[in-house]
Amino acid sequence: MSVLVVGSTALDSIKTPRAEAPRLLGGSASHAALAASFFAPTRLVGVVGRDFPRRYLALYRRHGIDLEGLQIAEGATFHWAGEYEVNMNHRRTLRTELGVFEQFRPDLPPRYRDTPYVLLANIAPALQHHVLDQMRRPRFVVADTMDLWLNTALPELLRLLRRVDALVLNDGEARQLSGEDNLLRAARRIHRLGPPVVIIKKGEHGSLLSGPDGLFLCPAYPLARVVDPTGAGDSFAGGLVGYLARAGGRVRDHLRAAMLHGSVVASFCCEGFGVRATVRVTPAEITRRVAELRRLTDAA
Amino acid sequence: MSVLVVGSTALDSIKTPRAEAPRLLGGSASHAALAASFFAPTRLVGVVGRDFPRRYLALYRRHGIDLEGLQIAEGATFHWAGEYEVNMNHRRTLRTELGVFEQFRPDLPPRYRDTPYVLLANIAPALQHHVLDQMRRPRFVVADTMDLWLNTALPELLRLLRRVDALVLNDGEARQLSGEDNLLRAARRIHRLGPPVVIIKKGEHGSLLSGPDGLFLCPAYPLARVVDPTGAGDSFAGGLVGYLARAGGRVRDHLRAAMLHGSVVASFCCEGFGVRATVRVTPAEITRRVAELRRLTDAA
Repeated sequence: MSVLVVGSTALDSIKTPRAEAPRLLGGSASHAALAASFFAPTRLVGVVGRDFPRRYLALYRRHGIDLEGLQIAEGATFHWAGEYEVNMNHRRTLRTELGVFEQFRPDLPPRYRDTPYVLLANIAPALQHHVLDQMRRPRFVVADTMDLWLNTALPELLRLLRRVDALVLNDGEARQLSGEDNLLRAARRIHRLGPPVVIIKKGEHGSLLSGPDGLFLCPAYPLARVVDPTGAGDSFAGGLVGYLARAGGRVRDHLRAAMLHGSVVASFCCEGFGVRATVRVTPAEITRRVAELRRLTDAA
Repeated sequence: MSVLVVGSTALDSIKTPRAEAPRLLGGSASHAALAASFFAPTRLVGVVGRDFPRRYLALYRRHGIDLEGLQIAEGATFHWAGEYEVNMNHRRTLRTELGVFEQFRPDLPPRYRDTPYVLLANIAPALQHHVLDQMRRPRFVVADTMDLWLNTALPELLRLLRRVDALVLNDGEARQLSGEDNLLRAARRIHRLGPPVVIIKKGEHGSLLSGPDGLFLCPAYPLARVVDPTGAGDSFAGGLVGYLARAGGRVRDHLRAAMLHGSVVASFCCEGFGVRATVRVTPAEITRRVAELRRLTDAA
């Protein structure tokens, strides 16, 4: 079954302590759609400007991503520039140029409205609502978010939480949203806000699933070297939803395996700038790394 | 088979954002010996002063801990006072009164010298050497350490690493000792310093085993409420060595399960001030929580 991914499509200029790279393919929807495309037919909804490199369109297409929902507007593509600190756990934004993204309105092509699996990647909650308003009874809706929306659009976000099946957010955001420092209690409080499935991402420390079958502690695949963690969270969410779409059947039966697959795709994402490492990965490599991740947590 | 635990035996006065408790039973060896005692006969080597409460001696004895190696000296027991910040991940030392610990020399009762499993809990590396000098071919020696010794006794610590089977340390210490920010590379470098088994503790994020059979990612048991994390790392090491002693046979075959058991005992430790929660635990509760921890990481 197919996946609809809505979010930002951007150009990222990224600086790490070791290197830098300008105008990489970036944005929450780009990372998420590429990740999902390993597992299921993927439809992308986003907006880019006339300056958006053709090679990036070709790259989406090589991954079989349906681009009917990608708007090409007059103006410049959303551009984000950021710099990582030595340990890669902190980054600061150097520049944000919204460009055509400022007027983005995710209107769906009619045939997208029946897509069964929906990932509302990180964009303004009002836009996430607008997407849901157009969908016809999706089977499973996952929303990602970020601290910006907690600070600037909390009422819309809270209203969104009552419309989604799963919320994906990082540990700091979970603490902020719930007012609980402890992540187990944070997850419980977030459930009360709506989503039956809450997934808290902890970066290199893995992620935590709280759902109808209780908790699952998902490890991060251990990497000896992180090149660029940008988009890892989006790749995680994309891989997770893509895996669920491929699995079909009852979502709760596949959530844990979906977490592992998301985690593995995110690990590949971290091994190159932008999507460079992600797009080189083969399905066999994903399968191999998932098996290894299972072994790494198997106490026998 | 039995376990020898050498380390500090102290009184801890602990303040958390919610409560405080004075003169609790504390010290690396107290936590570690109690943890080990759930699994195997445990011998304690340490020193206390005349002021050491009789009820704490009774408590050790109730856990079957052999106290022939516990010296009772003229003077005051080592007293540590510390305060935790809101999120319990940082603490600051308010007072350190070494008392009789300042002159501590861990001379072993002769019958201790054949103990097969040895935990050199956190004390000065020179004292850890002194213990090993007295041992007759132990089967498995685990050393714990702390940043203080990295800063003040590095040459002795490096010499110690060539004499032990396993080193247990936390993530910050692993980074400092190895000069590597990445923990996988840190573990590899620490192996080159001597120990075939390296265990890096990451607090609430679990721990990492690097040994002859590769890596193992051990989760921390998720707690909805941490009362006092003091001694969790010592409890982890004690539970781990205790479990290995109970298992017998080839150590490498039991390391992963030993990590889980150590992790679970540490989780109980965090649920009360000092050793209050630890000493109330039953073997059945440990078994139940280990089984639950396995399920929490089982992706099925």
